[in-house]
Amino acid sequence: MPDPRLDVLTIGNAVVDIIAATDDDFLAREGLEKGSMRLIDTDEATRLYEHMGPAREVSGGSAGNTAAGVAALGGRAGFIGQVAEDQLGDIYRHDIRGSGVEFDTPALDIGVPTGRVMVLVTPDGQRTMNTFLGAAQHLPADAIDPKQIEDAAILYLEGYLWDPEVPRRAMTQAIEIARGAGRKVAFTLSDSFCVDRHRDGFLQLLQGGFVDILFANEDEILSLTGAADLDSAIAQVAPQAAVLVVTRSEKGALAIAEGRRVDVSAEPVNRVVDTTGAGDLFAAGFLAAFARGGGLERSLRTGAIAAAEVISHYGARPEADLAALVRERLG
Amino acid sequence: MPDPRLDVLTIGNAVVDIIAATDDDFLAREGLEKGSMRLIDTDEATRLYEHMGPAREVSGGSAGNTAAGVAALGGRAGFIGQVAEDQLGDIYRHDIRGSGVEFDTPALDIGVPTGRVMVLVTPDGQRTMNTFLGAAQHLPADAIDPKQIEDAAILYLEGYLWDPEVPRRAMTQAIEIARGAGRKVAFTLSDSFCVDRHRDGFLQLLQGGFVDILFANEDEILSLTGAADLDSAIAQVAPQAAVLVVTRSEKGALAIAEGRRVDVSAEPVNRVVDTTGAGDLFAAGFLAAFARGGGLERSLRTGAIAAAEVISHYGARPEADLAALVRERLG
Repeated sequence: MPDPRLDVLTIGNAVVDIIAATDDDFLAREGLEKGSMRLIDTDEATRLYEHMGPAREVSGGSAGNTAAGVAALGGRAGFIGQVAEDQLGDIYRHDIRGSGVEFDTPALDIGVPTGRVMVLVTPDGQRTMNTFLGAAQHLPADAIDPKQIEDAAILYLEGYLWDPEVPRRAMTQAIEIARGAGRKVAFTLSDSFCVDRHRDGFLQLLQGGFVDILFANEDEILSLTGAADLDSAIAQVAPQAAVLVVTRSEKGALAIAEGRRVDVSAEPVNRVVDTTGAGDLFAAGFLAAFARGGGLERSLRTGAIAAAEVISHYGARPEADLAALVRERLG
Repeated sequence: MPDPRLDVLTIGNAVVDIIAATDDDFLAREGLEKGSMRLIDTDEATRLYEHMGPAREVSGGSAGNTAAGVAALGGRAGFIGQVAEDQLGDIYRHDIRGSGVEFDTPALDIGVPTGRVMVLVTPDGQRTMNTFLGAAQHLPADAIDPKQIEDAAILYLEGYLWDPEVPRRAMTQAIEIARGAGRKVAFTLSDSFCVDRHRDGFLQLLQGGFVDILFANEDEILSLTGAADLDSAIAQVAPQAAVLVVTRSEKGALAIAEGRRVDVSAEPVNRVVDTTGAGDLFAAGFLAAFARGGGLERSLRTGAIAAAEVISHYGARPEADLAALVRERLG
């Protein structure tokens, strides 16, 4: 197996975030569950956009954020995702390439616009996401370049990609290529509501031994297992992945590998502005360190530093020099 | 003359800001003059966008920002400007209406996209703007609804609108309607480079007595008059406008009316993040107060409060509750 050209290659829904500050009353009036991600169609996207306030647009998408984070940490990152031949697609391509991420998926021109997520941020920093997948749900399996997958030390996939059927096939094909090439496969459960929708599929992936590194937060792993408490859930899942990483928001994070568990605390944050991307950037930090031979503790701490940066401002892509932040804290 | 339905109606270039952090080296390599606004064509827009880093998109445009500011201060505001029938145009319309501004200019569908400004922000908070006018330069005179102009206490126009020929005609027509209806006309010189391009036109507007309230910063009024110092420039211009407002960044601002001069200091700001929109929001604050009968001092101080808010974050539209801020400071 030749040395990998990329540290991390991610596949996910290519979407632009449309971020607006809101309040709990607005969520209540709209019947939205705070902290959730729901999929919406064109009509609902139009209706909700008309109701919500002025917004800013920032490129997003869970796996795209993770790739941008890996690059910001000095890692070699790539991303595969589907945008349309339109203005939001141009913005998406510009931003991910400008972040130093390899991105070669050709834009689709089939009359379906680039996907977008209406992100409603409450004063407590929590985000409630309303996702119109658009072109992202048309990522074809033939957009997967086997050579690129073989060139990456770690293939990282978002659970959200399970929602649309076409990219799910692209994802399973990518997993097969990566495993055939002896590369590692990382997977995030993405969201507890997403786990509810696809519990069987996710369990099959794990039980089939297709996942080397699993990322989950507390809600997600509890939803996946139906366990009563975190420790039981961990005990159930840990044997099914070489590395299990569980993020716990302000309570820190933990990782388990070969029966050994390491816990780290969260990095301090002056003011939580927008929690969008916290999990994505945690994964970026963990993977960037892990791909370069970092141990569990260094990988977890790098994840915690990257997550702390991204929740201190609006938008799910890093704004500070993450590599410098990590050098400062971890040497 | 019936009571006005709107406090302030503004006309300007409808553009979306594409904001990226950068450094002095990048400006030097690109040969860009820090703090300036230059007009660019499609090719240069494409080239520069490829070179600049990841960005966020926020609706902007000088007069649009001012209208949004007036609305955020509790004033009744309207805006006239040209967007295209495209995604950026949808975003622009959403944001300005979501800000509570009346906006009824129909989108154009002539194959010219919505305008955008690539805003490069250096670590000192200064912004260097590269404007692709796009659809904005096609604002037709027949987009001016005479009834709407007659309904506004103050018509506010940006000097930038002088650059493209077609909206310049729309603007002069609007001035005639406003004056015919006994309404006030306010005008901003916009930018010292803009004054360089259109000195004669601006001087004719002033000397013709078409401007009741003139906004300028130090560079602009010096450029307009060719005077050696600020006091000489003020002495030259003050007789040509019923109210002259001069903004002086961290040195505060002043206004002169009927021979009386009032100076106010700048509002304190924790950290200057992005100065884009400082002048636009100063004008918003001044006009919102002035339209409701505020005196020079209260109007200036309201302007200073609005300007201080907008430079404390990225983007040229207010994010905090400006009306509450003003109540808190001025009662």
